[in-house]
Amino acid sequence: MHILITGGAGFLGSLLARTLLQRGSLGGRRIDSILLADLVESRDDMLRADPRVRCVAGELLAQCAGLMAEPVDAVFHLASAVSGECEADFDLGLRSNLDSTRALLDACRAQSGRGGPVPLFFFSSSVAVFGADPVLPLPLTVTDHTLPTPQSSYGIQKFICEQLVAYYSRKGFIDGRCARLMTVSVRPGRPNGAASSFLSGIVREPLAGLEAVCPVAADQAVALASPATTVAGILAVAEASREAFGGRTALNLPGLTVTVAQMLAALKAIAGEAVVARVRFERDPAIERIVGGWPSSFDSDRARRLGLAADPDFRGVIAQYLEQHPAARG
Amino acid sequence: MHILITGGAGFLGSLLARTLLQRGSLGGRRIDSILLADLVESRDDMLRADPRVRCVAGELLAQCAGLMAEPVDAVFHLASAVSGECEADFDLGLRSNLDSTRALLDACRAQSGRGGPVPLFFFSSSVAVFGADPVLPLPLTVTDHTLPTPQSSYGIQKFICEQLVAYYSRKGFIDGRCARLMTVSVRPGRPNGAASSFLSGIVREPLAGLEAVCPVAADQAVALASPATTVAGILAVAEASREAFGGRTALNLPGLTVTVAQMLAALKAIAGEAVVARVRFERDPAIERIVGGWPSSFDSDRARRLGLAADPDFRGVIAQYLEQHPAARG
Repeated sequence: MHILITGGAGFLGSLLARTLLQRGSLGGRRIDSILLADLVESRDDMLRADPRVRCVAGELLAQCAGLMAEPVDAVFHLASAVSGECEADFDLGLRSNLDSTRALLDACRAQSGRGGPVPLFFFSSSVAVFGADPVLPLPLTVTDHTLPTPQSSYGIQKFICEQLVAYYSRKGFIDGRCARLMTVSVRPGRPNGAASSFLSGIVREPLAGLEAVCPVAADQAVALASPATTVAGILAVAEASREAFGGRTALNLPGLTVTVAQMLAALKAIAGEAVVARVRFERDPAIERIVGGWPSSFDSDRARRLGLAADPDFRGVIAQYLEQHPAARG
Repeated sequence: MHILITGGAGFLGSLLARTLLQRGSLGGRRIDSILLADLVESRDDMLRADPRVRCVAGELLAQCAGLMAEPVDAVFHLASAVSGECEADFDLGLRSNLDSTRALLDACRAQSGRGGPVPLFFFSSSVAVFGADPVLPLPLTVTDHTLPTPQSSYGIQKFICEQLVAYYSRKGFIDGRCARLMTVSVRPGRPNGAASSFLSGIVREPLAGLEAVCPVAADQAVALASPATTVAGILAVAEASREAFGGRTALNLPGLTVTVAQMLAALKAIAGEAVVARVRFERDPAIERIVGGWPSSFDSDRARRLGLAADPDFRGVIAQYLEQHPAARG
């Protein structure tokens, strides 16, 4: 089978591609090729060395039809402008997140319309679809039935795309599955423009011997998932039968609820006082408002029925990061 | 103030325009002009004779910027391709309902961006945003917090537009208000391509001496609102303070729950056995599926807090139709 991963040069796209190549199959079908599409070419040497991998660079919106010139059996649509830049640049957010997704869906529709395969279409939505509306406050625990009232550009774009994926699925153009990813922590690499970027930074930077700024209060609770748990969730959703996936609405992946204080306590237990001391609190009202508006407690019933569970604790999340990135300590 | 009504040559747009002109003001501000935009020019002689009214004909998508060349203080966006045609023609539905709404919102954004007024933007959403998802069945009573899972093209387009209106409102480009209209009955005139068209037809046609076909079973329950109740709801939503409107999500207008059998019993009580006998049952699975998927019972809390109530009974709805349309009887 032939797989397209958008955002394929990013952290999650690379990890997903590596996992797929290692398994060699998806849903029982052998993986013949993976096309990694992103703004820039993948710099992942292991992926580039694999004969099954091809990389394409460029803006997604302009190249959707070309990416699907050869029949594609499964699309993992992970590409996205991140929350900070969507909030700052209205047009960029709509173009990168909404228009690109629609163009990709239309390329899928064109493929099935000309007699090609009806592609599996995984869409990575986000916990950011939830937000505290002025008059409809979030419930204490968010379920698969909770009405999203997004309060950020990123969140509303994701929620609109969920509707489009459901729509194209109902019409039979794709076999679409939307899953809402929790904030992924610990991400390797550098800070990015996401409002949630610090939720990796306050672990990654101190471990590397660098200072890190935490822009929210220590008692801020968040819902997180480790990279391995996130990729396992993506694959379980992609491999589920339509019946087991359940409906066409988005499914909430499981999240580990922790406060920033608990994250730092886990870091201290693993790496010691001196490492944690590199985190400085400097509150940023804009980030506090966005992150504070996301729910931190989930009852992810549909995910549970797929056999998925949250990371058991944040110490294990840090341990996973250190194991995957042996050079992480500065 | 200057008002733009899209769908202004349609039944509801005309009734809204006539009501606004008769009142002379909206939210305490004098109405200086009403621009009626639609595919065709309004044929409403009373409206055309009013010096405050101007008519523009053409496809909305192509002319949004032009419609707002002069500053507009309030937009009532009622224009829409109807449910039947959206289901049959995928591209037409997306273009007419989604792309046109976005273009209109962008024209509003451009107006406020160049220092013009931030327009009030009323968006007529629909009960059709609700539908019975295969695994998330509708609750018995739908509230303002119920998660919509639209099962029709029309419904999903309306729901996406609700999100865009909320988005542009949060960004301060418009003062947006989405209200979900119930099926309007009794509409005058001819059947249209809406799946709900028969809910006016089974009253209007028999009264006019014509046969009518009912495509659903007699025990099918539906949620209806008379034209007067619908327009009163639109105006109350438009005139509410942002605080009283409550949040940026869509508000469900009140609906009268009746079965088709109860509708026909009311018709019989008003017009007699011979009139009701002109209704023939001929079930249409496609229409049954769409209409049967709409909720029929609402607890419209936000609307109630605006002082809005459903029509008390269907006899009153028929009486309103006969009073407004003295030539309705054949």
